[in-house]
This record gives sequence, C-alpha cells and structure tokens, in this order.
Amino acid sequence: MKARARNIALRLSYDGTRYHGFQRQSLPVVAVQNVLEKVLAEVCGEPVELAAAGRTDTGVHAYGQVVNFFTDGRIPVAQLPRAVNGLLPPDIAVMAAWEAGRDFSARHSSTGKAYLYRIERCTVPNPFTRNYAWQIFRPLDVAAMRTVLRLLVGTHDYSSFRAAGGAPMSPVRTLDEIRLDEEEGGQLSCYMHGNGFLYHMVRNIMSTVVHVGLGRISTDRFTEIFAAHDRRLASPTAPACGLYLLHVDYAGRTDVPD
Amino acid sequence: MKARARNIALRLSYDGTRYHGFQRQSLPVVAVQNVLEKVLAEVCGEPVELAAAGRTDTGVHAYGQVVNFFTDGRIPVAQLPRAVNGLLPPDIAVMAAWEAGRDFSARHSSTGKAYLYRIERCTVPNPFTRNYAWQIFRPLDVAAMRTVLRLLVGTHDYSSFRAAGGAPMSPVRTLDEIRLDEEEGGQLSCYMHGNGFLYHMVRNIMSTVVHVGLGRISTDRFTEIFAAHDRRLASPTAPACGLYLLHVDYAGRTDVPD
Repeated sequence: MKARARNIALRLSYDGTRYHGFQRQSLPVVAVQNVLEKVLAEVCGEPVELAAAGRTDTGVHAYGQVVNFFTDGRIPVAQLPRAVNGLLPPDIAVMAAWEAGRDFSARHSSTGKAYLYRIERCTVPNPFTRNYAWQIFRPLDVAAMRTVLRLLVGTHDYSSFRAAGGAPMSPVRTLDEIRLDEEEGGQLSCYMHGNGFLYHMVRNIMSTVVHVGLGRISTDRFTEIFAAHDRRLASPTAPACGLYLLHVDYAGRTDVPD
Repeated sequence: MKARARNIALRLSYDGTRYHGFQRQSLPVVAVQNVLEKVLAEVCGEPVELAAAGRTDTGVHAYGQVVNFFTDGRIPVAQLPRAVNGLLPPDIAVMAAWEAGRDFSARHSSTGKAYLYRIERCTVPNPFTRNYAWQIFRPLDVAAMRTVLRLLVGTHDYSSFRAAGGAPMSPVRTLDEIRLDEEEGGQLSCYMHGNGFLYHMVRNIMSTVVHVGLGRISTDRFTEIFAAHDRRLASPTAPACGLYLLHVDYAGRTDVPD
C-alpha cells in the first residue's frame, strides 16, 4: 500500500462528559475518537486513523488535545477546522489544523504535557459545575495543600500515585511546575506541567492532596505516602470531571504552531 | 379541606439544559417543577404544589429562582436544603429554604427581577459553553450595543420585544438598570433589572442588540424599532441557553432573607 501523502495534525477541545474517553471504543460505547474519525473520513473522502497525545478517560475534558492522521484527502488545512466543526457535535471542536512533517506523531513526538484539575468549594451543590469540577463541601486548608504539592515538584518515582495494575513502565517522571490558584467564586485550579504522567497520576495526586486539605492526612503522612512508592497508601482516584488536558508540548519542532 | 400549616419558600439554582422549562409538564416531557415536586412530596410526606416567581423556558437557567409551597410536613427548614438536594438530580439545587408568612407568594409578592444574558465571542465553537452562552463568531461592536441598551432604561412600552401571541397584559415595564460587562475570555454578560419582564422580552432585546453589535441594525434603526411597538420589526428570539434568572426581589418583606 502506497504511503499517504499528508500528515495532518489537529488541536482539539472537548467536553468529555458524554464520552467514554478519547480512545476508540466498540459500539454502543462512544469515544471522542469514534466521532472524530467518522467526521474526518467524510471530509477527507477516505477512512482515517488518529493517533492522540493523551488518552483521556471517561468524563475527562480537553482544552488542548493534539492528534494526527495520514491522508490523501485534498482539503486545505486552513479550511479544515470549519469543515470538521460543521459536522462535529457541539461538545467537540477543532481549534487548529496544520500540515506536520512525516515523522511527527502527536503521541510520540510529545515532550511534555500540562493538566488542570478544578476543585469547587461549595456550601450547596452547584448545578453548573457538576460535570466540570470536583465539588467539595467542607473547608479546605489551601496552604497545607500547597505545601504538599511543592514536595511533588522535581524528578521522582511517582509509584504511590500511579493506577493500580497500570502498564509496567518506569514510574519516574519530572514535574517542573505545580500551581494551586484560587479563582473567583471559590474555585481552585491546580496546574501541573511535566515531561509525562502515569495513568491516573493527576487524579490520584489531587485526591490525596484534597485529603490533606480536609485535614484527614497530615503533611508528614503525605511525605511518607509519597516516599513509600505504594499505590495502596494514597487516596482513591479523584473524580474525572475535574480533569482537563490543557496543553501538549512539542519542544524543538518547527512544524507545530504555538 | 383544612389549610396547611406552613408556607415554605425555596431559592433554587438549576441548569435548564435537560428540562422543558420550569413549569410542570405532562410526561414524557419533564420540567424542573415535576422533579422538584416529586422530591418535596417525599421529604414532606404529602403531595405539594409549587408556585414559582418566574416560568423559565426550555433551556433557560436559574441562579436564583424562588418558589413556595404549603405543607403540614414537619421537616425543619434548616434541614430542608440538604434533604432535598440529596434526592434531586445534580442539575437542580436548593440554595436556601425559609418559613414565609401565609400571604407570601413567590410569584405575586415579587417586586422585581434580575436576569443575566451571556454571550461568548468565539473564533471556533467552545464545547464548554455550548449550553451556557450564545456563541457569536463575528466581531461585535460593544460600544454600539451599550448605546442602544441605554435607550431601554426607564419606563417604556416594550411591545417590540414581547413574544408574538403573548398574554394580553400591559406592555409597559420599568427597567432601572442595564449593564453590558466584558468578562475574561471574551465573554459578555448583560445584566438587566426591572419591575417585571414580558414573555421572551430579554431574549428578544438581546437578539436585536446583538444585531446592532454585528452592524446589521443601526442605532437609529434600533430606536425606530423600539418606538414602533411592533414585534415584527425586532430580531428573532435569542437562544435560551444564554439566559439566567439571576434574582427575584421582594421589597418590603421581612420574611425573605437576602
């Protein structure tokens, strides 16, 4: 089979509420990839297969997912976002499209990622953020949360926060920036940037950090949990709805726009 | 039948996306009132019938809807929000509950209302605001929009902006405050406060004002439309998803908390 002529990359945002994650699923379960590949096939005039930077889980959102696919389709990239968005459901949108070099892989060329995790401090449930933040109904000690988040910056073995039964890859990653910002209306948003993340790592970190904020885990105990490299000690995975894939880095590549 | 002992009032917020408006509907169509009356009946141990300050339409949201109902149920009002919220779906929430005087009617005691209408200026569709704002993909002249909104402040005949075929009540209302605020991320939010609103009035105003912002209606033409008292001249009703019932006033009542 002749290699297809073009390697097209897309930056996407999506509301993950209705989807069984990004990665293609068998019907009747629908993932973002199912929907997007169907629309791209229509626009390109041939079946296409996507590769994605991050395999977001059920209910996880994206502001800046990146995907790529090879095609012989002739549509100019400048027209692609509008054509694709016209066919997509309104909870998925292509923000940008560009021609990438043949060696570009949304997944394997990635040099880093940024995630956002949103927490809302509520006195009563907020109907408008039910799918977009982890709602917490008790006071949180934000200073204590920041203290333990600082311990996570650097190059570490994050085994305590990896999913139980995940793939047997190295648990060592580098997180170079973590910020916990207070936004208006009582929302907290935690920004994490690193060279890579283990499966469920952000949600397992956030859950354990929230338990510190609630006073159920001391900062000393958090230090022990982190040092133990044992997933069984940390808190249960935090809700998917608070998590957003914010940005994917492709350092050193000239074929990826800002 | 003996009159029921208590008149209980509630302040509610809800995401109107999934509901056929506030007012009770026959199944299979579901309105907020259907859901809330069912839960209140469970909590109060008897069927209850709600009266509401505003009959929001399909897809319209509320931050501060007010309702009241009579009951012999014994639950203390302090416990009512938590009990009811535990049984409500997460897109409806009781923010507050209180004992009102026997003569209090959420609908008839109201002395004024405030609405918010959200507009988002987008270059591509935003999946996260698709049900929460009117997305506009062309530049808006915000100064021109503010100019025509100022014309609407005061006591006027708003016939040009009332729903075609609405109830034959007086079209004269007083709007004492209108603000068009620019928020972060390109969102516009229009606050309107008045002693009452005609059916579809906010949405018909917003649609015509947006057409001014797009340059399709001049400020002079807007003045003519407003003065003509003729619904056929104004623009089609703006999308429901941008509209929020923000607050209901009960001036002079000592039995309504802030």
